[in-house]
Amino acid sequence: MEEKKILENISKPSDVKKLTDDELKILSDEIRKTLINTLSKTGGHLASNLGVVELTIALHKVFNSPHDKIVWDVGHQVYVHKLLTGRYNKFDTLRQNGGLSGFSCPDESEHDTFFSGHSSTSVSAAYGIAQANKIKGNKNYAIAVIGDGAFTGGMVYEALNNAGRERSRLIVILNDNDMSISRNVGSFAKHLAVIKARPSYFRIKAKTEQTLNRIPLVGVKLSNFLFRIKTGLKRVFYKSSTMFEDLGFRYMGPIDGHNINVLVDALEAAKSANYPILLHIKTVKGKGYNFAELEPSVFHGISQFDIDTGEFHSQGTSFSNEFGKLMCHFAENDKRVCAVTAAMSLGTGLADFERQFSERFFDVGIAEEHAVTFCSGLAKGGMVPVFAAYSAFLQRGYDQIVHDAALQRLKIIFAIDRAGFVTGDGETHHGLLDVPFLNTVPGVAIYSPTTYEEMRNAFVKALYHEPSVTAVRMFKGSEPSLPEDYEYNAKDYEIYGDSEADIALVTYGRLFASAAKARNNLMKENINVKVLKLNKIKPVNKEAVDSVFDCKTIFFYEEGEMSGGVGEVFNLMLTDLRYGGRFILKAVRDEFVHHATTEILLREYGFDEEGITKFVSGEIKNE
Amino acid sequence: MEEKKILENISKPSDVKKLTDDELKILSDEIRKTLINTLSKTGGHLASNLGVVELTIALHKVFNSPHDKIVWDVGHQVYVHKLLTGRYNKFDTLRQNGGLSGFSCPDESEHDTFFSGHSSTSVSAAYGIAQANKIKGNKNYAIAVIGDGAFTGGMVYEALNNAGRERSRLIVILNDNDMSISRNVGSFAKHLAVIKARPSYFRIKAKTEQTLNRIPLVGVKLSNFLFRIKTGLKRVFYKSSTMFEDLGFRYMGPIDGHNINVLVDALEAAKSANYPILLHIKTVKGKGYNFAELEPSVFHGISQFDIDTGEFHSQGTSFSNEFGKLMCHFAENDKRVCAVTAAMSLGTGLADFERQFSERFFDVGIAEEHAVTFCSGLAKGGMVPVFAAYSAFLQRGYDQIVHDAALQRLKIIFAIDRAGFVTGDGETHHGLLDVPFLNTVPGVAIYSPTTYEEMRNAFVKALYHEPSVTAVRMFKGSEPSLPEDYEYNAKDYEIYGDSEADIALVTYGRLFASAAKARNNLMKENINVKVLKLNKIKPVNKEAVDSVFDCKTIFFYEEGEMSGGVGEVFNLMLTDLRYGGRFILKAVRDEFVHHATTEILLREYGFDEEGITKFVSGEIKNE
Repeated sequence: MEEKKILENISKPSDVKKLTDDELKILSDEIRKTLINTLSKTGGHLASNLGVVELTIALHKVFNSPHDKIVWDVGHQVYVHKLLTGRYNKFDTLRQNGGLSGFSCPDESEHDTFFSGHSSTSVSAAYGIAQANKIKGNKNYAIAVIGDGAFTGGMVYEALNNAGRERSRLIVILNDNDMSISRNVGSFAKHLAVIKARPSYFRIKAKTEQTLNRIPLVGVKLSNFLFRIKTGLKRVFYKSSTMFEDLGFRYMGPIDGHNINVLVDALEAAKSANYPILLHIKTVKGKGYNFAELEPSVFHGISQFDIDTGEFHSQGTSFSNEFGKLMCHFAENDKRVCAVTAAMSLGTGLADFERQFSERFFDVGIAEEHAVTFCSGLAKGGMVPVFAAYSAFLQRGYDQIVHDAALQRLKIIFAIDRAGFVTGDGETHHGLLDVPFLNTVPGVAIYSPTTYEEMRNAFVKALYHEPSVTAVRMFKGSEPSLPEDYEYNAKDYEIYGDSEADIALVTYGRLFASAAKARNNLMKENINVKVLKLNKIKPVNKEAVDSVFDCKTIFFYEEGEMSGGVGEVFNLMLTDLRYGGRFILKAVRDEFVHHATTEILLREYGFDEEGITKFVSGEIKNE
Repeated sequence: MEEKKILENISKPSDVKKLTDDELKILSDEIRKTLINTLSKTGGHLASNLGVVELTIALHKVFNSPHDKIVWDVGHQVYVHKLLTGRYNKFDTLRQNGGLSGFSCPDESEHDTFFSGHSSTSVSAAYGIAQANKIKGNKNYAIAVIGDGAFTGGMVYEALNNAGRERSRLIVILNDNDMSISRNVGSFAKHLAVIKARPSYFRIKAKTEQTLNRIPLVGVKLSNFLFRIKTGLKRVFYKSSTMFEDLGFRYMGPIDGHNINVLVDALEAAKSANYPILLHIKTVKGKGYNFAELEPSVFHGISQFDIDTGEFHSQGTSFSNEFGKLMCHFAENDKRVCAVTAAMSLGTGLADFERQFSERFFDVGIAEEHAVTFCSGLAKGGMVPVFAAYSAFLQRGYDQIVHDAALQRLKIIFAIDRAGFVTGDGETHHGLLDVPFLNTVPGVAIYSPTTYEEMRNAFVKALYHEPSVTAVRMFKGSEPSLPEDYEYNAKDYEIYGDSEADIALVTYGRLFASAAKARNNLMKENINVKVLKLNKIKPVNKEAVDSVFDCKTIFFYEEGEMSGGVGEVFNLMLTDLRYGGRFILKAVRDEFVHHATTEILLREYGFDEEGITKFVSGEIKNE
């Protein structure tokens, strides 16, 4: 109870700089407790933040944010940074509506350099800042912090290739925990393992120099001098280089990422280089919380949990689970079926498939571009590849979907998870663009089921009836409850309600649940509405349009961006038929959507049962 | 005149296998002559094809296409392959309407594995095929042929990372000519230079073993045996590895890519490995035609030329040229202006900028993803980056445009070249998707000028008036001629013709020229039409819609894909206003567009003066 309270008194990075070694140790412990306590209630990214406690402290000791710019790759390991940059008091609002973002967010703090959420972008962004600094002649640093998982994304390589061998104050910190979200894959990971197996000249260095570092100023200079000698020695000693050196970076490491003194020492050395540096640090994902250390991928992105048992509140089944089971079923009966994932085998429900059909399971790393084109090769070779990806991440493969999938007219299936709003993650994670961008691609078919049964049927069509590229969209979580009198007909579209009604609600996917219930509410207000539910949303079946053509008013609801969406297409089909009634389209209109629960967002956009009921009722009564 | 004619008698790869060494030499010469003669008339990709004559011959000697699959990266170096796989007789139809495609094209021949045209995809595709072969238990090979330029694209690295260290019959041939389209950039290129500077164990090998190879069967086996010994020796000798070995490939090379015997020898060795192989060959881009060897980037993608002088038929100025001049002007007056290109400094007109403002010029390699995010970093650092890219290639940065540009609300400018139809290149090169995909991105502004003056004005707005991400679209070639009475008002839209007319033609960009002339034709038929020309196409100015709201018929012409295009948006805006007239949208409807001249394509789609005149006249008269 007499414990020294450090964290609550830190309101800016300079407060960190003043602390003693012992205080820093206490600070680390306090941060870990805060992370575990808060996230057990809010959910979020636990394991990755536990892994960067010491690194973040060291960064703020050595660098001068916001003048020096820290760019956090993916941005979900930014909680510790938030705690040290004036957001400790708001930390319990994390990921809540109106609260702190779960990612790096410049609107919150000048210390957050970029909005982020997608992987492998940090080196490009930091190199841009470093070049701008150089042009302007200022001496600030740009620091990219990036995990070994994100290194499987090709953008990193493009950036290293561009940035290497050129003088600039760019420091890339490779946070190596052997993991992306699941265990890291590919040859690069093995290359890192080889590097790590070498005797670390840095470890020896750390011990002998700790004393020297205690002497201010002189210590740092001496230490840098020694570091440079050691680097030279290393080259003589190892004779072989790392891939980073082949790409024109000076490589430092590997060092212990949980030792603040070693980290500070290395960062100071990196600062003095005036040359692109790659600093390789080893960390433990989940460090300091047993359950997370043991199962870091389970504790990557989490919901609420019990701190003492490490158990999650049960969530029942979900589209991802049901999809995973279905894939096993397909694979058992059809030797051509392959599953491809970009480091998301857990998230997309493919863990069982991975175990049972390892020969036909491919985790390609965080590499959506390659994933799409690799599928094209599999398909050319006679397989039927199913690439399971989150909506927000599939967009990285847009060019490949056009050029390597659709243009080839091969049977490639995209299982799109997290389509529509997603709870908590915000701007970078909602799945509001997959329909608009897939709509632009010639020859692609898209299904958007509402229930598990419909999802299964959509995949059967994709595998055995569609001629070419087909996408099946699933939203996060479980199937919604539907009115009991609704019957699924397995066709491209269906009508719920009185087919003669002269008001129509048109929609697809999750919103059908809201629309069907709203329809029943409206009936009670004596407003006769039918719901046209589109099962296949590209191309839109002409008969579906015909089925509402006689309505005097058509309301189209779409959980996605308006431009390029199905609403616009549907409207044009009506226009082509010279429709004379009223068409009202509700969708997300040219904006990014903030973080909140899906429930709140559906309400905010008027997409829930009440919202639809109220809007339609109002419009009809005012007509 | 007594010359032996080899090429004209080759109708399939097996014909190549029968030839003697001397005959192969004659064949190479005949191929080079055919390339130079034909391309001097048709235009196309000359230098890259001259560089792969011997390689292509060797590939068809050693492998068994189409069972073994050769995947040509980018696909523009596939002419020699076409000549050896039954298409010699049609070769003079290259890139002509209805003739041979200038790229790899499965519709033409079973020997063309994929449609291609975009860079850096071949390793992913070939690895997919290799995995499919492995699953099916067949013993065929998948061979990716890829230039060092394409290696700057991150997808290659994603693919190598995925494919390395795993048994498969995958062979990656790195065709290293020190060039992408312009001189190759970045650290990887320097890494290759280091590798090439080593004494080639293969060169020595080639000499000593040529004799052995003459002995059939035994020779090949012996040669493979020796190769394996040499590979082992190499590891001892060099002690350091190549980046490819770090990524789990067996590295062979560098070898002379213009010596068929050496190539055959190496390919046979690669075949026997049953492990992913990277074979590094050195070639000369433009080999065998002096002018092209001296200026390979000038002879990359070419129009008609004079064989004896190496001179091109003069083409006058173009949007690219005028854009380049404008950028120099901006840079001179504003120290923040930077130019970024993805290996397209020549094509996008930035050669002068590169010379004059080298500190603010960035050629990032064929790396559109990195380019966009790098721009984001530059902008964050206070610069104003202009990324000049072809429409068809910009789409590779779609995710980054969403996540690293638009979401950051930074001032980043996309100068989109080759928007709309492009002569000769076909499906993979038309710029028909940039408007649809940019329309999906919240907060992005798009300008689509018709003339140089309008283009200059659009960039002034982008640099000094727009708050955030702005795209300016330019089409290939020069500004079109316009009616003399047309005056540009520099606003978001303008009306050409009688503003009271009750028929409207709405369009933007190049098609305004057709539409304005069509309007004048229609006036002669006593059909009073006004043309609404949109200068800014996202967002569409509401007043622009108001200006045609009273028209009884609106024709919207769009040189792009319909889904997600401006026509759909415009129609929805009309619908929102409860427009009661007729709206007819003409655009490219969910299809890929074949290769032909722009002129032919505009005619085919009814987008030229005659097409528009005829269609509008017909519709109005039938009303």
